[in-house]
Amino acid sequence: MSLVSLSQSKFRSKCPASCALDILGDKWSLLIIRDMIYFKKKTFNEFLKSNEKIATNILASRLKKLENFGLISKQNTQKNKKINIYKLTEIGLDIIPTLIELTMWSIKNVEKTESIQSISSQYLKDKAKLVSDMKSDYLASLNDI
Amino acid sequence: MSLVSLSQSKFRSKCPASCALDILGDKWSLLIIRDMIYFKKKTFNEFLKSNEKIATNILASRLKKLENFGLISKQNTQKNKKINIYKLTEIGLDIIPTLIELTMWSIKNVEKTESIQSISSQYLKDKAKLVSDMKSDYLASLNDI
Repeated sequence: MSLVSLSQSKFRSKCPASCALDILGDKWSLLIIRDMIYFKKKTFNEFLKSNEKIATNILASRLKKLENFGLISKQNTQKNKKINIYKLTEIGLDIIPTLIELTMWSIKNVEKTESIQSISSQYLKDKAKLVSDMKSDYLASLNDI
Repeated sequence: MSLVSLSQSKFRSKCPASCALDILGDKWSLLIIRDMIYFKKKTFNEFLKSNEKIATNILASRLKKLENFGLISKQNTQKNKKINIYKLTEIGLDIIPTLIELTMWSIKNVEKTESIQSISSQYLKDKAKLVSDMKSDYLASLNDI
């Protein structure tokens, strides 16, 4: 599997946490990945309909960025050649543990957030299995394209 | 322990991942927390000297935000009343697992990042112990204030 390639000028430093934030450190990129993993969304219009009401231009720019960095890929469907389908790559799927931890931090610490029972209960039992189950679920959702 | 309180208008939605990003979704907030956890930094000038070269006004604004949301607290030192010491609260310490996952994602998937041997090796052996050790290390570093 190829690595995410950042030109040296785009790095603020070589610290891995900093590099990850060079790619994902904004309010929207991880939400698009959430839409793909938690809600199995795959098209521009599906992302647009999320509760957070992302603007069209921001969505387009974030999808392009995630594609350029190799976290997602874009393809046409067999059924409708006009509709682009966005899919997480292996590199994108590796974000699942970060997404889960961020979600659990919020469930524990932020007032008025919704709990996600299926995640909370499995998280306490077996974190590794939760990650692996979510990955399998996501990949299975791609079968009907 | 009190919860992070966001007024309803500041939420984009009640999704916990989205709420976490309302607080932490930028290029700098998690780097300040990284500086505290990985490098035991505690003062404005220490944060300013990090490799990523955060601007003074952005640092001030991010520290204020993290303080307002209850992730960090500010106090004077006994030794020097003019110097503010920033410390992670319990809510802030709960970010450690997210920070570790983000770091490990980058070490695995981003070209040219530095590896952090102490984290990588322990991560593979016992993730829960790594989180607990990092928390203890951080708390121990506060003893000499």
